[in-house]
Amino acid sequence: MIKPRTPPGVMELLPRDQIAFQRMLDTIRRTFEGFGFLPIETPVFELSDTLLTKSGGETERQVYFVQSTGALEKAAEGLPELALRFDLTVPLARYVAEHEHDLAFPFRRYQMQRVYRGERAQRGRFREFYQCDIDVIGKDSLSPRYDAEVPAVISAVFAALDIGEFTIQLNHRKLLRGYFEGQGIDDTRQMTVLREIDKLDKRGEDAVRATLTGEEFGLSDEVAERLLAFSRVRSTGHDDALAKLDALGAGTELFEEGRNELRELLGQLRALGVPESRYALNLSIARGLDYYTGMVYETILDAHPQIGSICSGGRYDNLASHYTRSKLPGVGISIGLTRLFWQLREAGLVATADSSVDVLVTLLDDASLPDALALSQRLRGSGLNVETQLEPRKLAKQMQYADRAGIRFVVIRGEDEIAKGVVAVKDLRRGEQFEVADDDLARTLLVEREQARSMP
Amino acid sequence: MIKPRTPPGVMELLPRDQIAFQRMLDTIRRTFEGFGFLPIETPVFELSDTLLTKSGGETERQVYFVQSTGALEKAAEGLPELALRFDLTVPLARYVAEHEHDLAFPFRRYQMQRVYRGERAQRGRFREFYQCDIDVIGKDSLSPRYDAEVPAVISAVFAALDIGEFTIQLNHRKLLRGYFEGQGIDDTRQMTVLREIDKLDKRGEDAVRATLTGEEFGLSDEVAERLLAFSRVRSTGHDDALAKLDALGAGTELFEEGRNELRELLGQLRALGVPESRYALNLSIARGLDYYTGMVYETILDAHPQIGSICSGGRYDNLASHYTRSKLPGVGISIGLTRLFWQLREAGLVATADSSVDVLVTLLDDASLPDALALSQRLRGSGLNVETQLEPRKLAKQMQYADRAGIRFVVIRGEDEIAKGVVAVKDLRRGEQFEVADDDLARTLLVEREQARSMP
Repeated sequence: MIKPRTPPGVMELLPRDQIAFQRMLDTIRRTFEGFGFLPIETPVFELSDTLLTKSGGETERQVYFVQSTGALEKAAEGLPELALRFDLTVPLARYVAEHEHDLAFPFRRYQMQRVYRGERAQRGRFREFYQCDIDVIGKDSLSPRYDAEVPAVISAVFAALDIGEFTIQLNHRKLLRGYFEGQGIDDTRQMTVLREIDKLDKRGEDAVRATLTGEEFGLSDEVAERLLAFSRVRSTGHDDALAKLDALGAGTELFEEGRNELRELLGQLRALGVPESRYALNLSIARGLDYYTGMVYETILDAHPQIGSICSGGRYDNLASHYTRSKLPGVGISIGLTRLFWQLREAGLVATADSSVDVLVTLLDDASLPDALALSQRLRGSGLNVETQLEPRKLAKQMQYADRAGIRFVVIRGEDEIAKGVVAVKDLRRGEQFEVADDDLARTLLVEREQARSMP
Repeated sequence: MIKPRTPPGVMELLPRDQIAFQRMLDTIRRTFEGFGFLPIETPVFELSDTLLTKSGGETERQVYFVQSTGALEKAAEGLPELALRFDLTVPLARYVAEHEHDLAFPFRRYQMQRVYRGERAQRGRFREFYQCDIDVIGKDSLSPRYDAEVPAVISAVFAALDIGEFTIQLNHRKLLRGYFEGQGIDDTRQMTVLREIDKLDKRGEDAVRATLTGEEFGLSDEVAERLLAFSRVRSTGHDDALAKLDALGAGTELFEEGRNELRELLGQLRALGVPESRYALNLSIARGLDYYTGMVYETILDAHPQIGSICSGGRYDNLASHYTRSKLPGVGISIGLTRLFWQLREAGLVATADSSVDVLVTLLDDASLPDALALSQRLRGSGLNVETQLEPRKLAKQMQYADRAGIRFVVIRGEDEIAKGVVAVKDLRRGEQFEVADDDLARTLLVEREQARSMP
């Protein structure tokens, strides 16, 4: 006998939590599709030499390799042939490069699959987790206009998920780098200074200021103060965002390019009807240091900033330089849904879902089985999810089961009901019992279900 | 530069095929939920000692092991800690045993995830493929009535998938073993004889007869002939199935038990309204030799029997004896969707889907961008999937793009249309263009879309 154990670092759910999780996945998918993104799926593993094109780095240390029994026995030298994907970006790059001639550009794709990282086992750290990504990939070029659709998608997704107010924080790498440039910090030092600024949240302003003015960076107090003031800029509302951009004063060409793109983006967000409470400038965000080259996005739950960014992304110059000579600029975002779900549950923000089963058709005696089966099937034909009690039990037991399972409607058709041509329905959510004519049953339950869904 | 390559033995789809595949997954899921099955997902890997409880065997030879970079460097002795699941049954057994006290029994679960087998690379053989499974697991016992729901689910799934007429073939291991018993073939030899009978399709009747009457088995010509006649039994229609069961004559207790369960099942199928053309006795099917103990199912596409069974399963005595002392009998089926999709495509039975995008909102000049964005967003609010042309191009180019992408509706709002308060719509499926009042646009397109979906 072996003790049954889930491997450490994965999130495995009981059915009612799985239903809640699945509904979030469905909502995200529906919203992605609403904005014209197309689905792709890639295999869980890639060829190791395809996946590991970059040299070393933290991510590579966390890769899981995959070996067939045969390869294991041969104890072959070198890297195993296959490795599990650690994100959806590298597989996307490989996919786009491999299928380049079969795709229409700009290529708008969404992908919602699990990824794998050999994280240290730790509460809230997952070795297997869902990412829900969208990206738009251009060939040779991609208009900055695509960058404005991205916050509109984020806004629609989290409004639909209904997990509280949120703010999409916006920044632009060109604005950031252009500002640094204007302060006399040249290209080569920008990255390292940015890296310090990126630590503001963790280290606090005083520590960062000390580093910036210290021996290594040698910035003047004045310049350090300006950088910190810049990174403190936050806006509240649409007009304030535009005013804050104006107030930054004149800058380098790069700076003005970034500022103009931000202004354009704000205009498009308004045209797209994104509520202005949902987006704001936050000039401290940088989103990694090498990859992003234009707009960057982070999303914060207003009431739970400690959760950190629940949806992040940005604009990059070239997706697939390791696989193709074509220049493929893009913009995209990622939602780490497993971690988000876990955090929402920890914070009590996601309730256990009702069952996906709408109706329990009860069975009072063996003779009624054919009737119960036929009734169940009729309800299914109307689009209801129905479980049939297949062995007679006391009615109280069947009610209790439905209640515990989160099934809302219990349908009873005993001799009395058959004689009257009606069905008795117990609505466990409302705690009401009512009778309804045979022919009206399906419609009545469907209407109730739709009402409940629109008013959760 | 690395040549971008999908690993061998996986099915990776272009977006429009992915949409077709996703619709099949959605249809299957909807049907499973219709019958009251609850979703679960398990991690892609299990602990190796949990997964590999059985000794050796073909499946085990095909297992993929998973190792973190660290473990690989240490070149640890023994089996790697993790292995990819090779089916959904072992993970289900582990899941039910692990969460036994949190589940309500009979536990009805569905699971639709990918599984992994180190198959020899070969056309139509996949190393990664979707399985779509349902199982009902009882605690201590499970009424045979659950066995009758299973063909009703199969019937509903394949009717909804709309891939042609099909027949669910039914047999019962107790009928089979009872019949053998009646022919004087004892328990110990039944398995090996069954294994020969199971080869009928591959080897042909003459070869099997020769083996059965040969030295190893030593059956008389008469007994061999009776076994072959038994395994030739097929029914057409409900009454014929009952008549064929009657015609088998009296048998052992085991035989009668199997026959009674088959009769009951046929009665329930009728009560569930399963069309009688969709099920038939086929007393030659055995579905593996050790695992199943009662009803067994195979499903054949009537016009494409060469594809083999597209959905199989049966009743088993004890799901999780490796993990728990609880007795957990069950019944279930599995659809290997990746292989099925591939085969349907090869046979020309699945068409490339239209895009998931319903509408392309065109853009004729930069000044109209805010209007195009607002219009797009309004349509999205009505539940339509909308792509916005973000950079102006010649209208003919935009039409051509929509046509190639499989987007049905192209929406145009130029100066003329704005002046008239209308929108011009090009319906690429019908090849028609029409005008519709601004306010009626969303409703008109939704109605058209619903009509197209109900009449494919």
